[in-house]
Amino acid sequence: MDDMPHVEFRTSPPKYKHWRLNADGPVATLTMDVDEQAGLVPGYELKLNSYDLGVDIELYDAVQRLRFEHPEVKTVVLTSGKDRIFCAGANIRMLAAASHPWKVNFCKFTSETRNGIEDATAGSGQVYLAALNGTASGGGYELALACERILLVDDRSSVVSLPELPLLGVLPGTGGLTRVVDKRHVRRDLADYFATKSEGIGGKKAVQWKLVDEIVPRVRWDDIVSERARDFASSAARLPGGPAIELTELAKTRAGDSIGYRYVTATLDRDRAVAEITVTGPSAAAPAAMDGVYAQGAAFWSLAVARELDDLILDLRTNETEIGTWTFETTGSAERVLGYDKLLLANYDTDWLAREIVLYAKRTLKRLDVTSRSLIALIKPGSCFAGSLLELALAADRSYMLTGVFEEEDREADPATITVGPANLSGPPGNGPLPMGNGLTRLATRFLGDTGALAAVEKAAGERLEADEAEQLGLVTFTPDDIDWDEEVRIAVEERASFSPDALTGLEANYRFAGPETVETKIFGRLTAWQNWIFYRPNASGPDGALRAYGTGKRADFDRKRV
Amino acid sequence: MDDMPHVEFRTSPPKYKHWRLNADGPVATLTMDVDEQAGLVPGYELKLNSYDLGVDIELYDAVQRLRFEHPEVKTVVLTSGKDRIFCAGANIRMLAAASHPWKVNFCKFTSETRNGIEDATAGSGQVYLAALNGTASGGGYELALACERILLVDDRSSVVSLPELPLLGVLPGTGGLTRVVDKRHVRRDLADYFATKSEGIGGKKAVQWKLVDEIVPRVRWDDIVSERARDFASSAARLPGGPAIELTELAKTRAGDSIGYRYVTATLDRDRAVAEITVTGPSAAAPAAMDGVYAQGAAFWSLAVARELDDLILDLRTNETEIGTWTFETTGSAERVLGYDKLLLANYDTDWLAREIVLYAKRTLKRLDVTSRSLIALIKPGSCFAGSLLELALAADRSYMLTGVFEEEDREADPATITVGPANLSGPPGNGPLPMGNGLTRLATRFLGDTGALAAVEKAAGERLEADEAEQLGLVTFTPDDIDWDEEVRIAVEERASFSPDALTGLEANYRFAGPETVETKIFGRLTAWQNWIFYRPNASGPDGALRAYGTGKRADFDRKRV
Repeated sequence: MDDMPHVEFRTSPPKYKHWRLNADGPVATLTMDVDEQAGLVPGYELKLNSYDLGVDIELYDAVQRLRFEHPEVKTVVLTSGKDRIFCAGANIRMLAAASHPWKVNFCKFTSETRNGIEDATAGSGQVYLAALNGTASGGGYELALACERILLVDDRSSVVSLPELPLLGVLPGTGGLTRVVDKRHVRRDLADYFATKSEGIGGKKAVQWKLVDEIVPRVRWDDIVSERARDFASSAARLPGGPAIELTELAKTRAGDSIGYRYVTATLDRDRAVAEITVTGPSAAAPAAMDGVYAQGAAFWSLAVARELDDLILDLRTNETEIGTWTFETTGSAERVLGYDKLLLANYDTDWLAREIVLYAKRTLKRLDVTSRSLIALIKPGSCFAGSLLELALAADRSYMLTGVFEEEDREADPATITVGPANLSGPPGNGPLPMGNGLTRLATRFLGDTGALAAVEKAAGERLEADEAEQLGLVTFTPDDIDWDEEVRIAVEERASFSPDALTGLEANYRFAGPETVETKIFGRLTAWQNWIFYRPNASGPDGALRAYGTGKRADFDRKRV
Repeated sequence: MDDMPHVEFRTSPPKYKHWRLNADGPVATLTMDVDEQAGLVPGYELKLNSYDLGVDIELYDAVQRLRFEHPEVKTVVLTSGKDRIFCAGANIRMLAAASHPWKVNFCKFTSETRNGIEDATAGSGQVYLAALNGTASGGGYELALACERILLVDDRSSVVSLPELPLLGVLPGTGGLTRVVDKRHVRRDLADYFATKSEGIGGKKAVQWKLVDEIVPRVRWDDIVSERARDFASSAARLPGGPAIELTELAKTRAGDSIGYRYVTATLDRDRAVAEITVTGPSAAAPAAMDGVYAQGAAFWSLAVARELDDLILDLRTNETEIGTWTFETTGSAERVLGYDKLLLANYDTDWLAREIVLYAKRTLKRLDVTSRSLIALIKPGSCFAGSLLELALAADRSYMLTGVFEEEDREADPATITVGPANLSGPPGNGPLPMGNGLTRLATRFLGDTGALAAVEKAAGERLEADEAEQLGLVTFTPDDIDWDEEVRIAVEERASFSPDALTGLEANYRFAGPETVETKIFGRLTAWQNWIFYRPNASGPDGALRAYGTGKRADFDRKRV
């Protein structure tokens, strides 16, 4: 699997091989029924509802569609179509054969989908209920942990377990350890025992230890699951659902070194190891009211951009691992961008669709924050880094903003400006509409501990800030003029390509999350970093490591030194 | 360096090769003047005030002695005895030749010493001032970052820098990245640029970017440093200093498979990969008042135990990497332990020595929390897991408490009890006397999100709790009786030895720190985990990696895939 297949993340329910999505009024059921023979790459069978990236791509698609195409759904029951097994977690043969970057990228995407499930519960009031009609092991139990409530069938054989450590010599890598202690508040010593006991825990003890919320005898299973789902639906805080919005197939071209969508394009320069990404602003002013948004549906600019960026991030992460730097440019009208933001934020509290679009933008930007690529924003005349699009510059590791204009290109042009808008500011809703995983806005993270600087930026909201003002306010990093621009940007990109890719990943992972940590940032920071190290060590992935030894009858041969 | 030398952490100023400690009234000066030829192991020269573990052991000793042997010192000026160089950081040739476990253990100890410097400032009001009389690079700048204030000489050549990423393909591994953004609040994009610019930043920009607090022309250097030190000393919150307490040489025997001190012993069972550690309680009741403590000095039980455990932890971590499990037992009188705690806590707010002893116990327990070994507490009749010693059981990954007695051993014995005391409870002082790195007590971390359970435990404070009550309250994990004890404990220890040591390290690092994260936990969680991964990857440590290539004139040959 060192030759990774090209992966497309676009799919839709008719194409699903592994999941069934049934909506019945306010309750939807998402059924995992993995096709053993339909793995994404050859070489393994997806037995016991185990999953690979292909299975997870469908789950991600279903979770997204539930939010846009099923506004009436308030509770999602996540269950299995197999008998006596909910899900056995990530497929082990797949993991054992996978390259290190593949494993890491796979776990990141899987984690993001689980965070998305929690976001549906917390942000949209679309509440997930894990109905474990059989054993949930490893990643299967981690999937359940992302749900608001976990029901386990009580049949003397079904259990929940995290057998990764004793069986495979790795960690539960998609949030399990963090969620057990930080979300479900399982006592750490019980959690320790649980994660070393490969046979898992079921019955009353699973409830006493807080590993599940409720156990239900098999004879009453269907009734109780339905009852709980209806109860959840009746108390769920989801805004009243208007007409559904179909997530129509994303128009995408991918040829040679360019990837194109309606509003987002990327040019891949493999020699310089850079992807030059451009986001185009709206081609018309925002509709006057939400009915105009409903009329446009998936074509509505804000939603289209969120979807296109989302797909592009996933595509580049998975298929273009040697492209280490992404530059972001924008082109279009700042006023229009701010107009779209304004419409959505004005209706955030009352209109489900306005809220869903903002939440989707939030998740896409969070995906950028945890992307292991250097991000550089290039702010030039004609750009529209304003409001929600300014977040791209604030998410970047650095930004360059041209002072003045390019004399030879267009000496009559207006100099570049950036504009802080309500989308960038904290509260309401919550900590601002587009918070990072640490719970703060990107501005609050940027100016952590410097309330004066943050206040000055807030005061400048709505103003078109030219380079000198933007630099003064701390909103951009460097402001070269026409004479220095090419050289400075060239050096920044070339330098990045010359550095150790590993060290850059570590640097960025540490710098991007100043301030408080949450379950989410702990998963991507603490847990993922340890898991990556463990994955890479011979004790897991070496020829005699536990991942390779699993199922062969051989015992793993460990270097016993504690590091 | 795969054959690591045996390392002793005990030293004292007359033995220092690399540091000078001069106290002059309320201001002490700690001068780094590394002996190039006196590296801990052969194979490298400690040029430009670069350091290895030997240099850092002396620094740790000096920082400890400043707290106990210099109660009059309120400000410590940390500076260099070399011309135009403060410190070049960890020695690169040493790092390049070091084994992975050695590098990781070295960085952990170095980080702990830096946290100890911050603890002196925050806990004791003994404030550190970094007087950078020349360039501070890498770990040299990270050392400065641990100080409360950083002065840099302004001479057009002296800078601060974090050149690890561009020059060595690794991260600044002892807190630098975290402290830059989370402590000093350097803006993340400037911090990004700074960590990629190997030539560093000095002069006004270093102040503007908050990398240092003040720049001082060389002609005024001595005057200004003295003035700032005096100012700090006059406003420092250190309690009035009584007679100094000499940290006399720790009596230690280390023969074959046993390590012994006055109150702490360890038996190493290499076959079972376990160190059986026993802490003995006080041999007499606590003195009635602090004058009795001053009279006993370093022999005072609480101080002696903190020192002995501290040395044992460092010894086992460094010299016994294949001993993966540590068991903790105690023996003695719980009343006496509680008496010692009571005396110290009653005087914490008014007596510098009482406070120092408590703070030392806190730091030692924190060292345990970040130790990459499985910790198991064994609670048997005759033990004294009460108050400060109960923290050993609360720090453990699991605890086993005997129900009843060992019939064959002593059927008349009193069953084991544990006692929660004021040392275990939160506030005052601060979040309790013995908080973890996350800022919470071990009890609060244990019962995170379960205020009812925590309240029940607080209510039971002072009671001698037998096994069934202790289990009911959630204070111990398992309570086997005489019949099951040997088997259960044996299996727990054997299992631990059979698991992947790497996965156990990751598991424990994730479980032990539920709840909030701080600069300290971010350093040991997020930063350290990424650094360990980076250290292990061929891009850093492989034959063509950046660490090996440094100084050879060859460029590192990187696998360019971003992970």
